Amino acid sequence: MEALRNALPNDEVTADPTVPAEIAVVANPAPGVLAALPGLRFVQSAWAGVDGLLTDPTFPKHLPLARLVDPALGEQMAQAVAAHVMALHRQAPAYRAQQAQGIWRQLPQPLAQDRPVGFLGYGELAKACAKLLTDIGFPVAFWSRSEGDLEAVLASDIVVNLLPLTPQTRGFLSASLFARMKPGAALVNVARGAHLVEADLLAALASGQLSHAVLDVFKTEPLPAAHPFWRHPQVTVLPHVAAITDPVSASRQIAANIARFRAGEPLAGLVSSDAGY
Amino acid sequence: MEALRNALPNDEVTADPTVPAEIAVVANPAPGVLAALPGLRFVQSAWAGVDGLLTDPTFPKHLPLARLVDPALGEQMAQAVAAHVMALHRQAPAYRAQQAQGIWRQLPQPLAQDRPVGFLGYGELAKACAKLLTDIGFPVAFWSRSEGDLEAVLASDIVVNLLPLTPQTRGFLSASLFARMKPGAALVNVARGAHLVEADLLAALASGQLSHAVLDVFKTEPLPAAHPFWRHPQVTVLPHVAAITDPVSASRQIAANIARFRAGEPLAGLVSSDAGY
Ligand SMILES: NC(=O)c1ccc[n+]([C@@H]2O[C@H](COP(=O)([O-])OP(=O)(O)OC[C@H]3O[C@@H](n4cnc5c(N)ncnc54)[C@H](OP(=O)(O)O)[C@@H]3O)[C@@H](O)[C@H]2O)c1
Ligand SMILES: NC(=O)c1ccc[n+]([C@@H]2O[C@H](COP(=O)([O-])OP(=O)(O)OC[C@H]3O[C@@H](n4cnc5c(N)ncnc54)[C@H](OP(=O)(O)O)[C@@H]3O)[C@@H](O)[C@H]2O)c1
Repeated sequence: MEALRNALPNDEVTADPTVPAEIAVVANPAPGVLAALPGLRFVQSAWAGVDGLLTDPTFPKHLPLARLVDPALGEQMAQAVAAHVMALHRQAPAYRAQQAQGIWRQLPQPLAQDRPVGFLGYGELAKACAKLLTDIGFPVAFWSRSEGDLEAVLASDIVVNLLPLTPQTRGFLSASLFARMKPGAALVNVARGAHLVEADLLAALASGQLSHAVLDVFKTEPLPAAHPFWRHPQVTVLPHVAAITDPVSASRQIAANIARFRAGEPLAGLVSSDAGY
Repeated sequence: MEALRNALPNDEVTADPTVPAEIAVVANPAPGVLAALPGLRFVQSAWAGVDGLLTDPTFPKHLPLARLVDPALGEQMAQAVAAHVMALHRQAPAYRAQQAQGIWRQLPQPLAQDRPVGFLGYGELAKACAKLLTDIGFPVAFWSRSEGDLEAVLASDIVVNLLPLTPQTRGFLSASLFARMKPGAALVNVARGAHLVEADLLAALASGQLSHAVLDVFKTEPLPAAHPFWRHPQVTVLPHVAAITDPVSASRQIAANIARFRAGEPLAGLVSSDAGY
């Protein structure tokens, strides 16, 4: 609230959902809250993913909705993904397993130049990741709705999911996709938990089709205490921390988008409710 | 041997240490082997570190000795160090500990831009690391015999040791140095095990003065089975794999240096036996 107020000094900024707002800045509002605002004209998400909003059946789909586009979010995501990719590249899970057993064994180590990384989805965040990984030296393949090569992504040693969650992408990380991946490849899911068919991942890890998965997002968050991922040696569990919205930086982007909305200019991150992202 | 023979097609290349060679290409030869070669005129190390050679009292110190300088070694070291730094930056040890206990908790996460990294030693390998880390976004400080700022290195969040092992640097990573570091900082030792006073590291980890250590090198290698580092949650043990000499690339550099030696040109990586590196 403080950062938003600083970025919008001439606006009345309130956290009270009963005040009849013209513009709503939201993360994950309770279902029905937005539908109850009669004067609402624009919804700005403080998150990059708007799947939580669009699956609320009462969400006012006729209003313009913008997802957060923030270079600071891209930097965080790029650094998170680069850290995961570098750990997999340098075989951290294998060396960790060796350490736990007191095994001293050197594994063959290619250079990043010989370790292709593929992106599922190639929007704001994936592009920031791909740029950093390219700078580090990794060959990068990508695939999105409008461009790229899915086969090249699936032929990569490390596959990173940065799709938005939509009816088309829900459950996309499933047995049939894993079967098309390079045997022994690793998966990094930093998009949404519902992209992943969890049982299929467990089977692919057990068969060796996949060697390791780094998971930042889960179908149910927090990940339930009894979930097998917690104690799985081939799964790295992270508590949804790849790219957390920075209040100060995001508020600046949000204020700029609100100014665009008022001026009738094109919005950054305008969501197509048909496409679902 | 095959890579060396390919790189030196007009030379007789042998692995027999009793053949009276003019030039010796060595990694870690048995003590006395070089002293027993009467016609020896030049020693070329296949490793970047020559401490093992110089601590052999029979080593022929009057001969020119070159350590390996190979851009491929720099790339491997840079990628290894970047992977360790990124893992520490993204708090992988803390999240791993949380995963082991089933704890879902988001930790504050700065950007790389706010995570200074310092280098002890700023030679071929440290410079390659610093370049990559700078490209990723980390502020980098360094200190060597001839340049840099030790206080800035010790004020860094992550300190990387890439000194050569010499009488001056043996045991440099000790309690008095740790006490001057930023409380809670992490240490990455990819140089030599004998740089580190192991008991002092254990004490610094126990007190919290240091939060974590990534160790690629050890006083005794392989690390003995009973060593406390193996099972220490604040220590990442790696089996001396940061930058393994690539036979093909190194042979090319070695052949080029041999050509320089024969032409009377300045050698790459000429070691000063006084300085010890
Ligand atoms: N873990 C975290 O901390 C965290 C933080 C922020 C965001 N996220 C997740 O990251 C996601 C991506 O964010 P973003 O800002 O990069 O989104 P974005 O800019 O909207 O990019 C989405 C990309 O996915 C592609 N795509 C969409 N539907 C597709 C389909 N059916 N088949 C193939 N490609 C499809 C789009 O293709 P076109 O380019 O052709 O449109 C686009 O390249 C968010 O939706 C959110 O779920 C996670
Ligand atoms: N873990 C692995 O897989 C692996 C692989 C290869 C090498 N290594 C280790 O990495 C070390 C560094 O290799 P390199 O090729 O980068 O060596 P280098 O080019 O000789 O660089 C050595 C650096 O240390 C500095 N230095 C030496 N003595 C010093 C002292 N007493 N105080 C302060 N600074 C001092 C030098 O200062 P000046 O610049 O002023 O001369 C130079 O900057 C090797 O010696 C080896 O032990 C480890």
